[in-house]
Amino acid sequence: MMIVVMNSDAMLSQVSSVIHKIESLGLTPHPSRGEHQTIIGIVGIIDAGHKDDLEHIGQMPGVAKTIRITRPFKLVNREFKPDPTIIRVNGLSIGGEDFAVMAGPCAVESAEQVRATARAVRDAGARILRGGAFKPRTSPYSFKGLGEEGLKILRAAKEETGLPIVTEVISPELVPLVVKYADILQVGARNMQNYALLEAVGGIRKPVLLKRGMMSTIEEMLLAAEYIVSNGNKEVMLCERGIRTFETATRSTLDISAVPVLKQSSHLPVIVDPSHAAGARPYIAPLAKAALAAGADGIIVEVHPSPETASVDGAQSLTFDEFREMMDELRPVAAAVGKRMVLCGEDDAGMRRASA
Amino acid sequence: MMIVVMNSDAMLSQVSSVIHKIESLGLTPHPSRGEHQTIIGIVGIIDAGHKDDLEHIGQMPGVAKTIRITRPFKLVNREFKPDPTIIRVNGLSIGGEDFAVMAGPCAVESAEQVRATARAVRDAGARILRGGAFKPRTSPYSFKGLGEEGLKILRAAKEETGLPIVTEVISPELVPLVVKYADILQVGARNMQNYALLEAVGGIRKPVLLKRGMMSTIEEMLLAAEYIVSNGNKEVMLCERGIRTFETATRSTLDISAVPVLKQSSHLPVIVDPSHAAGARPYIAPLAKAALAAGADGIIVEVHPSPETASVDGAQSLTFDEFREMMDELRPVAAAVGKRMVLCGEDDAGMRRASA
Amino acid sequence: MMIVVMNSDAMLSQVSSVIHKIESLGLTPHPSRGEHQTIIGIVGIIDAGHKDDLEHIGQMPGVAKTIRITRPFKLVNREFKPDPTIIRVNGLSIGGEDFAVMAGPCAVESAEQVRATARAVRDAGARILRGGAFKPRTSPYSFKGLGEEGLKILRAAKEETGLPIVTEVISPELVPLVVKYADILQVGARNMQNYALLEAVGGIRKPVLLKRGMMSTIEEMLLAAEYIVSNGNKEVMLCERGIRTFETATRSTLDISAVPVLKQSSHLPVIVDPSHAAGARPYIAPLAKAALAAGADGIIVEVHPSPETASVDGAQSLTFDEFREMMDELRPVAAAVGKRMVLCGEDDAGMRRASA
Amino acid sequence: MMIVVMNSDAMLSQVSSVIHKIESLGLTPHPSRGEHQTIIGIVGIIDAGHKDDLEHIGQMPGVAKTIRITRPFKLVNREFKPDPTIIRVNGLSIGGEDFAVMAGPCAVESAEQVRATARAVRDAGARILRGGAFKPRTSPYSFKGLGEEGLKILRAAKEETGLPIVTEVISPELVPLVVKYADILQVGARNMQNYALLEAVGGIRKPVLLKRGMMSTIEEMLLAAEYIVSNGNKEVMLCERGIRTFETATRSTLDISAVPVLKQSSHLPVIVDPSHAAGARPYIAPLAKAALAAGADGIIVEVHPSPETASVDGAQSLTFDEFREMMDELRPVAAAVGKRMVLCGEDDAGMRRASA
Repeated sequence: MMIVVMNSDAMLSQVSSVIHKIESLGLTPHPSRGEHQTIIGIVGIIDAGHKDDLEHIGQMPGVAKTIRITRPFKLVNREFKPDPTIIRVNGLSIGGEDFAVMAGPCAVESAEQVRATARAVRDAGARILRGGAFKPRTSPYSFKGLGEEGLKILRAAKEETGLPIVTEVISPELVPLVVKYADILQVGARNMQNYALLEAVGGIRKPVLLKRGMMSTIEEMLLAAEYIVSNGNKEVMLCERGIRTFETATRSTLDISAVPVLKQSSHLPVIVDPSHAAGARPYIAPLAKAALAAGADGIIVEVHPSPETASVDGAQSLTFDEFREMMDELRPVAAAVGKRMVLCGEDDAGMRRASA
Repeated sequence: MMIVVMNSDAMLSQVSSVIHKIESLGLTPHPSRGEHQTIIGIVGIIDAGHKDDLEHIGQMPGVAKTIRITRPFKLVNREFKPDPTIIRVNGLSIGGEDFAVMAGPCAVESAEQVRATARAVRDAGARILRGGAFKPRTSPYSFKGLGEEGLKILRAAKEETGLPIVTEVISPELVPLVVKYADILQVGARNMQNYALLEAVGGIRKPVLLKRGMMSTIEEMLLAAEYIVSNGNKEVMLCERGIRTFETATRSTLDISAVPVLKQSSHLPVIVDPSHAAGARPYIAPLAKAALAAGADGIIVEVHPSPETASVDGAQSLTFDEFREMMDELRPVAAAVGKRMVLCGEDDAGMRRASA
Repeated sequence: MMIVVMNSDAMLSQVSSVIHKIESLGLTPHPSRGEHQTIIGIVGIIDAGHKDDLEHIGQMPGVAKTIRITRPFKLVNREFKPDPTIIRVNGLSIGGEDFAVMAGPCAVESAEQVRATARAVRDAGARILRGGAFKPRTSPYSFKGLGEEGLKILRAAKEETGLPIVTEVISPELVPLVVKYADILQVGARNMQNYALLEAVGGIRKPVLLKRGMMSTIEEMLLAAEYIVSNGNKEVMLCERGIRTFETATRSTLDISAVPVLKQSSHLPVIVDPSHAAGARPYIAPLAKAALAAGADGIIVEVHPSPETASVDGAQSLTFDEFREMMDELRPVAAAVGKRMVLCGEDDAGMRRASA
Repeated sequence: MMIVVMNSDAMLSQVSSVIHKIESLGLTPHPSRGEHQTIIGIVGIIDAGHKDDLEHIGQMPGVAKTIRITRPFKLVNREFKPDPTIIRVNGLSIGGEDFAVMAGPCAVESAEQVRATARAVRDAGARILRGGAFKPRTSPYSFKGLGEEGLKILRAAKEETGLPIVTEVISPELVPLVVKYADILQVGARNMQNYALLEAVGGIRKPVLLKRGMMSTIEEMLLAAEYIVSNGNKEVMLCERGIRTFETATRSTLDISAVPVLKQSSHLPVIVDPSHAAGARPYIAPLAKAALAAGADGIIVEVHPSPETASVDGAQSLTFDEFREMMDELRPVAAAVGKRMVLCGEDDAGMRRASA
C-alpha cells in the first residue's frame, strides 16, 4: 500500500501518466483530487518484484513524493506471525517465559580469566557465557583479540561449566570457524549493515544475536534481521545496546523504548546490553532492571575478574561481586513482571520460580 | 580545578604568560612539559568570580584548549550534599521512600473532564493531579489552554478529591497567578533555558518540577536547576521526558540512563514522564515500569476520559482502564525495588506496603 | 489534505465511523481498500478551525495513524507567496540582491569596545552592527550583559558609524525597551519556542532575526516564524546557526542544507551564523563562504577587539584583521554567485558590484 | 600526553599506586593536588605499546577518569606531516590545485546508460567517472548491482571517454577483483568501520575514497583512514557525505564544517558527496558550491540519463542538463576561491583557468 502525492502545480497529463504507470504494474490507482493537490492511493498485492517500479514512480514528472503505508519487512513482522519466536538454548526458552542472562568478559584474554569468570557468573545465575575472540576496534592500535585460540578457551570453559557460548563474528569468511565453537553467533553493532556477513549468518543453523547499530533506526535493525531470516535462519535475537546522541554522560543512550517497540513490531526475542550503553559500572544494574521491567527477554553483560586490568572495556565490566548483587536485585523484579530466572543446571522439576 | 593545554608549537613566553595570569588570580599553576605539548594544571579555590577570568585564559596566545575537571554546578551537586532532598507533598516523601504518581489530562478542557479524571486516577492510586491550563504549542494554530479558568477547574477538582495540583507555568509574569492555584509548578521542556522563568520560580515557596529540554544535556538540566536553587528555591524535581534523536518510532527517545546518572550526580528527586517520551499509548506502561526499576522517584502520566476527543496529545493519553492496569503492574515492581506506593487518603497507620 | 490509515484489523464499522466523521466536518472522504489495510484520503478546504477535529480522527477506534500531506504553515510558505520577502535596512535589500554582513561583539562590554568594533567592521564592509546587551546564559554564574546601559552604548555607536543595530531580546516584557534602541530584534536559539516572546515581537514594526533552536527542525523554525507573522509582523529573517548532533569537533553542526531548504520552502530571507556553529575561529571564514555559496542572504558574525579578553565566546570571535580578511575572501565569491556586497555609505550611484 | 583525574575522596595510597604504575611504564607522573581533587599529568614518549596499559590506569581504584590530550592518530595527522598529500589521477592533483569532479550513476545498470552518462559528464567538465557495480542495500529486497559485469561496463566507458573509474568495494574478498578495474576504490559509509575491508584496501596500490559513516565522528573517520595508511596505502581521500541527525528535511545532514576541520587536522584530500547528503535534486548544486567554497578538494555527484527510471537513488540523481548547469555555476566559484577546474583532455598548455 503506497500513496503518491502530486505537486500542487502538477498537470493533468502528469497525473494521468502516474495512473497509467500504476495500472501497467497490475495495481489499482485510487486518485483523490484536493484543493491544492492530488494524491493517488495504490492498492493491490505489492510484492518485492514491484519495489523498483514503485521507486520509479517517485521520480516521475509532477510527483512530489511517495509515502509507504505498509512496513518494508515481512518475515520478522509480528503482523504476519503473531506468535513469538522462541529460541531454545541450554534449556532456556528465550522469547518465552525465561529472562536470559548472558555474561562474561568483553574480550577473551586467557584460559584462567575465562574459566574463573564462567564459574562466577554461572554460580550467580547466568545461563550463557559471553566473550570476544575477535574484536572490531576503532583504532588500528588497539587489542584485536586472540582469534581461534580465544574460541578454544571459550569451549574449554563451556565444557567445565556447562554454559553455552555467545561470541562475535566479524567477517563472513570467519563464519565457518566461529560456528564450530559458538552456540550463538553475535553480529556486532558496527556490522549491523555488513550485508555479506548478514547473508553468511543467514546460512547457518545456530541462533544469531544481532546488535543494533549505534546510529541505526529500529526499522533498519528489523531490515537487517530480515536479511538473516530471508537467507534461511529464523533464530535471530534483536539486541538494543544504545544509540549515539548528543548526550555524553553515558557512552551511548540506551533506547529503552526500543524494547516495547520491537516486541510490538516483531515476533523475535529482544535482548538488552546495558554494559555498552552505560559505559560505566554504576549505571549497569539500574539499566538491567529497567530492561527487564520494560519487557526484554534477556540481557548481555560484561563481567571481569579484575576490571582494572581488562584489555578492553574495563570501565563497564562488573566485578564478580557486583554481578552477583545485580542478579539478586533482578530476581524480585523478574517475579514482579512474570519472567523466570533459574540457575544453570537446575532441572525442570527443581526449577524455582525467580520469585521464590 | 582546570587544565590548560598549550599548542604543540607554543612558545616558552606564551607558557610563561599563562602561568603569570594564573598566579595573578591567586591560583597555583602546575605545569607539565611533555614531548609535544605542555599542560598546566590550575589548583586553588576557584569560585564563581574566577569564571570569566578562566575563560580568558582559553583565549590567550598559544593555548590550544582548557579542560574543566570539576563540575560547573554546586548547589544541586550530590558531592557537596550527599543526603537526598526530600520534597513533601500530600503526605508523600518525594525523593525518599515513596514512588509518586502524578496523573491527569494534558490540557484542562472542562470541569467535568478534570473532575472525572481526578477521581479515576485517585482511585487507581495517583497522589497528585496534573493538568495544563497554559499550553505552549509549536503551531500558532493549536489550542493554547483555558488560562486562569483552567486553574480554577483544577482547584475545584483538588477540593473534591484531595489531590494536590501540578501545572505548567509558561512565562515569568504568570508565576504570581499560577502559584496561587498550584501545589507544584512545572517548567516545561521548551522553557528549560528560559532564564527569566527559572529566576521567577526560584523566588517562590512551592516545589518546582523542571522538565529536561528535548535538546538539553543532563549537565545543562542540572545547571537549570542550579538557577532555580541559587535564586532561593531548594525544592526542585528533575524530570526526564525524552530527548530528540534520529529515531522516529517514538515521539522522543526516553533517556532512561538519565535516572541513575541524575541520582548519582545530584541530591534532587528524579521524575520520569513516559507519556511525552513514548507519544503512543502502548509504550507507556513498559516505560513507567522501566523508570521505576531504574530508580526514579515518580512518574507523571497523561490520562484522559476519552483520548479520542482530547484537544491535545490524545495519542499518548491513557484511558482510565489503561491507567488502572498500569498501576496494578507498577505495584509489584515497586515492592521489588523497595519503593512505596500507597493510595491517597490512607493514613500512616493504614499504609499498605506496595507489595501487599 | 490528510490521509487516514486504518489498522489492518479494523472493522468495517470503524471505517464507516471515520467516513461519517469526515463528512460531518464538511470534508470529502476518499477511501481506498487494500489487501491488508484501508486508507481514507480527506479532501476539502481544511482550515485552522478543523485542526483539532482532525487530531481527534487520529484517536478514533481502528485508526492506525494519520498522515498530513500539506504543510502546517501558510503565511511563511513560498507556495502561497512565491515572491521573496525583501527587508530593507540601511539601504540593503535583505532577501534580494544584497549579501548582508552583520558583525560585532557577542556581548556589549564597554563603549570603547563597541565603538572600536563598529568602526572596524564598517570599514571592512559590514552593514549592520550586532552586540548583546542581554545574554541568556546556561550557567547562573556567567556574565549576563549590561542591560539598558548596553543598548545605549550600541545606539551611540550607531550614531557615530551609521550602522543600524541588531540585538537580542530575551523576554516579552523587554520588547518595549529593546525596540526603542534596536533596528532589528533578535530572538535567540534558546527562545525559538518561547511563544510569549514570539507573540511580543509579532506585535512590533521592526524586523526580527529568528535563530533556529539548536535542536529544532526546519519545519519547527518555520512554525515559529509563522507565530510572528500571524501576529502581524511580516519582516522575519530565518537564521541557521547550527544544530546539536553527536559530533563534537565543532560547537554545533552547521546545517548548511537548511539554506536551500528554507529558500525553497519559504519566501523569507535566510541568514547564517557561522560563529556559533563553528565555536572556533579557524572555521568561521570557510563556513561564511559556504553559506554565501549555498544561497544565504547574509551572515551574522562575532568580532572583538581582543578576543582573548572577551567576556563571552572569545574562542569564536574574529579579530579585526581576521574579519577584514574574511570580507576580502567573501567578495569574489559573492560576485561568483551574483550577490552584491557594497560598503556602508556608498550611495546607489557609486555602488560597486562586489565583483568589481 | 594524558591526564588522570582522581576521585574527590581518593585515598593517598590510591594516588601513590597510580604514580607508581605510571613510573613502571617508563613515563613521568606530574601530580597536582587541588582543594577537592588530585590530578596527575603523564608525560613521556607514549607509543602504541602503552595504549592498553594506559587504559588500565583508568580502571585503578580511586581514579575518576582519564583525559587524552594528544590525538589518537598519527599517520594522517597534519601536525606530523604539514604538507598536503596530493593524489594524482588523470592529470588532476587532488588535494592540490584542482577541484576534482567525479560524476556518474549511482548504480551501473547497462552499457548504454554508463556510456551516455560518461560522455555527458566528461563534456560538462567531470574528470572521473563514478558508478556502483556492487551495492550495499538496507533492504534484502533491493537491487544489489551487476557485479563484475558492471565493472566491465565501467571499463568500456573509460576506454571510450578517458575518464578513470571510482567504484565501491563492499567486502575484503572482492578487493582483488575490483582493483583490476577501478582507478580509485571507494569504501562506503556503511563499511567505514569494516576493519577487514580497511586492511584489504590498505594493501593495494591505488587510491581509496573513504566515506564517512553516517554515525561516525570526524575523529573516527580519521582513525579509519589511519587503518588504511598503517597497512601501507598512503593515498586516501576523506569523503564527507552527511551524518544522521534529527532533521528529516534532507536525507542526511551534510556536515560542511567537517571540510575545514579535516583540512586542519589532516594532510589528506577532502571530497564532498552532496548527492547522498541532500537526497533531493534541488539541493545538490547549492551544496556542491558550499563544499567548494568551504575548501573541499572535490565532489562526487550522481548523474543519470533519466533519473525517473534509475534503479537506485533516482531522487538525488541530476539529469545531464542539471549537471551541466551545476558545473557552470561551480566554475566562477572555483575561480573565486583559487581552485582549478579544467576539462578532461585539455593538455597543460591549453589549460584554462576555471576563471577564464
